[in-house]
Amino acid sequence: MENLPVETLNEECCHTDKGERKSHHSEEQKKALISRLNRIEGQVRGVKRLIEEDTYCDDVLTQISAVQSALNGLGKMLLEGHMKSCIVERIQDGDTEVIDELLVTVKRLMK
Amino acid sequence: MENLPVETLNEECCHTDKGERKSHHSEEQKKALISRLNRIEGQVRGVKRLIEEDTYCDDVLTQISAVQSALNGLGKMLLEGHMKSCIVERIQDGDTEVIDELLVTVKRLMK
Amino acid sequence: MENLPVETLNEECCHTDKGERKSHHSEEQKKALISRLNRIEGQVRGVKRLIEEDTYCDDVLTQISAVQSALNGLGKMLLEGHMKSCIVERIQDGDTEVIDELLVTVKRLMK
Amino acid sequence: MENLPVETLNEECCHTDKGERKSHHSEEQKKALISRLNRIEGQVRGVKRLIEEDTYCDDVLTQISAVQSALNGLGKMLLEGHMKSCIVERIQDGDTEVIDELLVTVKRLMK
Repeated sequence: MENLPVETLNEECCHTDKGERKSHHSEEQKKALISRLNRIEGQVRGVKRLIEEDTYCDDVLTQISAVQSALNGLGKMLLEGHMKSCIVERIQDGDTEVIDELLVTVKRLMK
Repeated sequence: MENLPVETLNEECCHTDKGERKSHHSEEQKKALISRLNRIEGQVRGVKRLIEEDTYCDDVLTQISAVQSALNGLGKMLLEGHMKSCIVERIQDGDTEVIDELLVTVKRLMK
Repeated sequence: MENLPVETLNEECCHTDKGERKSHHSEEQKKALISRLNRIEGQVRGVKRLIEEDTYCDDVLTQISAVQSALNGLGKMLLEGHMKSCIVERIQDGDTEVIDELLVTVKRLMK
Repeated sequence: MENLPVETLNEECCHTDKGERKSHHSEEQKKALISRLNRIEGQVRGVKRLIEEDTYCDDVLTQISAVQSALNGLGKMLLEGHMKSCIVERIQDGDTEVIDELLVTVKRLMK
């Protein structure tokens, strides 16, 4: 799994912009995330083509699993960047409520 | 979960077309599958916009979970149609090897 | 994953015994299933010991994951035996309702 | 899901005992964890009985899913306690490496 460029991970991640929490990915990081999303978008269109071409169901299910794996990889990549920057920063700033927010997200991603 | 139009599910599903196994979804069924895939494609583009707009990571992770749920729903819908048509037909035709194929697919979708 | 002795899988699996559907695993198959369950039981007791000994939470979570993997393996083993015997038999007997029952079980095991 | 007695969660969780990281659950917390593990152990023995009594495979699979859910609940309970105590403490002590450890555990629990 092509990892996020680590040195940018610890950049100051989440700051408040007019009262709204924002992320601040480096351009390099954004490019890595966007390129993965472009691939996933292409995969979804690929599944659509398979349906239109009456492809055997089992083969379509195989492609859907591939999209799910790509999404899981993207989610783990983002979670890692988030935990190594926003979570650490906010806890060090004394804002331990971020743990409750993280727990909700992690529990949703858990089996 | 908007289900596949059941009466079409039992239509003769998989036939061999020049030696290649094909599915034969009804037009209504195809429309239901394609409309779901269009929505998923839109959701993926939505996640891209969130990244471009420096949206807080936790909010992006929430949207990724939504795409994963939509994909899971699509997978279950296809698996149901496949099992109620292709799998039943091929077993009734004495082709019990389809169970091995189904097992590979089901195990991949399992936790 | 130590597989079920295949030759016994296709033995007539599910028969009605006083109106109640039963499985008929061979003695060899039963021994394989029971020995796995004994190991899982031992693993659960092991997790209890870790808690009693104030073991670091992360290490306890690692052991819980190991129990989950063992259970997943057991579930896949049983599902395989069930699909290769009961499911095939009942479909060949014209009892296609078994597919609905199988779908409920498979969807519950899916991510 | 019967939660861990919250007021004890924030108790000083992980301390080093002769160079080994330990957890320090309150007695009340330990009782809650142990009672869940006793129930899980009983459920595993219950699955064994079902196999011994030739119970229909689908019913056995249902019970295995129940054990998996109970284990998931236990894992989430422990993860929550761990994140609200050990993780926060060690980050506040400047030990941000704990995030890498947490990531390994979370990724293993993810779908």
